[in-house]
Amino acid sequence: MTTTIALDAMGGDHGPRVTVPAALAFLRGNQDGRLVLVGQPEPLEAELRRLGARWDDRLQLQAATEVVRMDEPPAQALRSKRDSSMRVAVTLVRDGVADACVSAGNTGALMAVAHFVLKTLPGIDRPAIMAALPTMRDHVHLLDLGANVECTAEHLRQFAVMGAIVVSAVEGRARPSVGLLNIGSEDIKGTEVIKAAAALLQESNLNYVGFVEGDGIYTGNTDIIICDGFVGNIALKTSEGLAQMISHLMRREFERNVATRLAGLVAMPILKAFRRRVDPRRYNGATLVGLNGVVVKSHGGADVLGLRNALQVALSEGRKKVPALIRRELEPAPERGLA
Amino acid sequence: MTTTIALDAMGGDHGPRVTVPAALAFLRGNQDGRLVLVGQPEPLEAELRRLGARWDDRLQLQAATEVVRMDEPPAQALRSKRDSSMRVAVTLVRDGVADACVSAGNTGALMAVAHFVLKTLPGIDRPAIMAALPTMRDHVHLLDLGANVECTAEHLRQFAVMGAIVVSAVEGRARPSVGLLNIGSEDIKGTEVIKAAAALLQESNLNYVGFVEGDGIYTGNTDIIICDGFVGNIALKTSEGLAQMISHLMRREFERNVATRLAGLVAMPILKAFRRRVDPRRYNGATLVGLNGVVVKSHGGADVLGLRNALQVALSEGRKKVPALIRRELEPAPERGLA
Repeated sequence: MTTTIALDAMGGDHGPRVTVPAALAFLRGNQDGRLVLVGQPEPLEAELRRLGARWDDRLQLQAATEVVRMDEPPAQALRSKRDSSMRVAVTLVRDGVADACVSAGNTGALMAVAHFVLKTLPGIDRPAIMAALPTMRDHVHLLDLGANVECTAEHLRQFAVMGAIVVSAVEGRARPSVGLLNIGSEDIKGTEVIKAAAALLQESNLNYVGFVEGDGIYTGNTDIIICDGFVGNIALKTSEGLAQMISHLMRREFERNVATRLAGLVAMPILKAFRRRVDPRRYNGATLVGLNGVVVKSHGGADVLGLRNALQVALSEGRKKVPALIRRELEPAPERGLA
Repeated sequence: MTTTIALDAMGGDHGPRVTVPAALAFLRGNQDGRLVLVGQPEPLEAELRRLGARWDDRLQLQAATEVVRMDEPPAQALRSKRDSSMRVAVTLVRDGVADACVSAGNTGALMAVAHFVLKTLPGIDRPAIMAALPTMRDHVHLLDLGANVECTAEHLRQFAVMGAIVVSAVEGRARPSVGLLNIGSEDIKGTEVIKAAAALLQESNLNYVGFVEGDGIYTGNTDIIICDGFVGNIALKTSEGLAQMISHLMRREFERNVATRLAGLVAMPILKAFRRRVDPRRYNGATLVGLNGVVVKSHGGADVLGLRNALQVALSEGRKKVPALIRRELEPAPERGLA
């Protein structure tokens, strides 16, 4: 069975120069995948020609006349750009033409458009942004990463339920472990909201493992870590900043003089192997969970490899029909017979 | 003029095995420093003997019979251990015998004891934990790092005022820049508390530079970054966790086989130079600002180099009488004559 993904082909910092080659690479690697490139036909066709490729039944065009700018306010993108590549891509998901969509456009606008077009699933108050990060062992899923700056305990509980469904569906784990990000592991630590959320998770049928501190994100002992969008965004961006600083300062040490440059050449393959292991492009592709459809946000600056990974995330979740799984989990249990 | 520091010589994971050698190293490096080691005379004297040193007028003993355990609840440490090395060290500051004190004991207990014994400065609602972190350029001061999980805009403003006084006094910068940690740089981003704090800082006479995102912590463009204790603690611990993961995975790559081990030997001096640059021990020593006295918290697991650095932080702030500077800044302006 094929899975169809609508790609906002105009989104991101680089537009068709990245989206079209990423689309072609994705199709080569996934015989069961189909793509609909959404955007202005001319630049898309020019890029296709440049790459010696053409439209066929696995790579189709859906024209959209407008483009949401990277700095465009969400409300404006929603109200005044009804024929944007972003919105048309999301609408293809709503209409069942695509199983998932991907955009590297601006996060706020994508969240606003997706929320408006797809609506939240019954039982979900707010969609959240969920993404994977590398850990010492493998990877961890973190949510919310910035959609909701202020959350109630009930919101955090819903994030946990959704996170567990995504991970168990996509990674085939029966009962993924769920932790709550906090500033200490003792029961008395944290805000009132965190303590109330801990109580809700304790009562739930999730595999809740308790509080996780900031450094616990990277140990890899927990499959899913829950936090509000303010804290999640700070944790994510702080990590990005520290990784950049480490890479910058290390490069500076290796470039100090001829001897250190030579040592750098010797160490290069090892440093490259290390970088491959934690390459942020391999983790590109955050899911907007809680909507009536699969929407994946790619980093705006993602290159071909990064965007390809986001398409892969969309394929996995679209194939498993994650929104339907969440809907089923949250539905009131049907009346059962006496036996 | 000499500056006297009271050192809780029983605190931390290692007690006298670290505190005594760190004290001796500190005295060798600072001819204008004096230390009072607070704790149980026997283990302290045994350690002194082992190191071939003895009490003199720059290294004195203040006996204290009890020790606060690393996992002891703050309330219990406060109520039932009135003769703990931690409390006696803080009391020496209150009584003017010492200009500052240092403890590697448990943070919650130290905050509770210091708050109770020294009280907050007039105009300060809550003390905060402030520490320096390395950046691409130099370092940044971050507060609060965990003393206050929920803060009002006014608390954040007070943190900013205190942070600016500490940095300008200790580092001799006239108008250090102050940023507010947030999840975006646009005015509309963040919680209501953050937006209200931004308005207060805008009106203040501080060198307020606006919102800083998580990755901006490490660029080094801002001298001081303000946040509530929940977010600050998450940012700090997340950074610790990521740094550990990077170091662990990099070591693993270098230990893969004989060739990578050899490459590791070649690269070792460069990696060491890099590590020295970001060595957390060089940043050890967080200040509890806002109290009627200088109190410095060392990491519980700090080694001799780390604790020595915390003593150095205490020396700088004790010498400059930082609490008096904060008090003066917050005092209502005196009536001035007509001219």
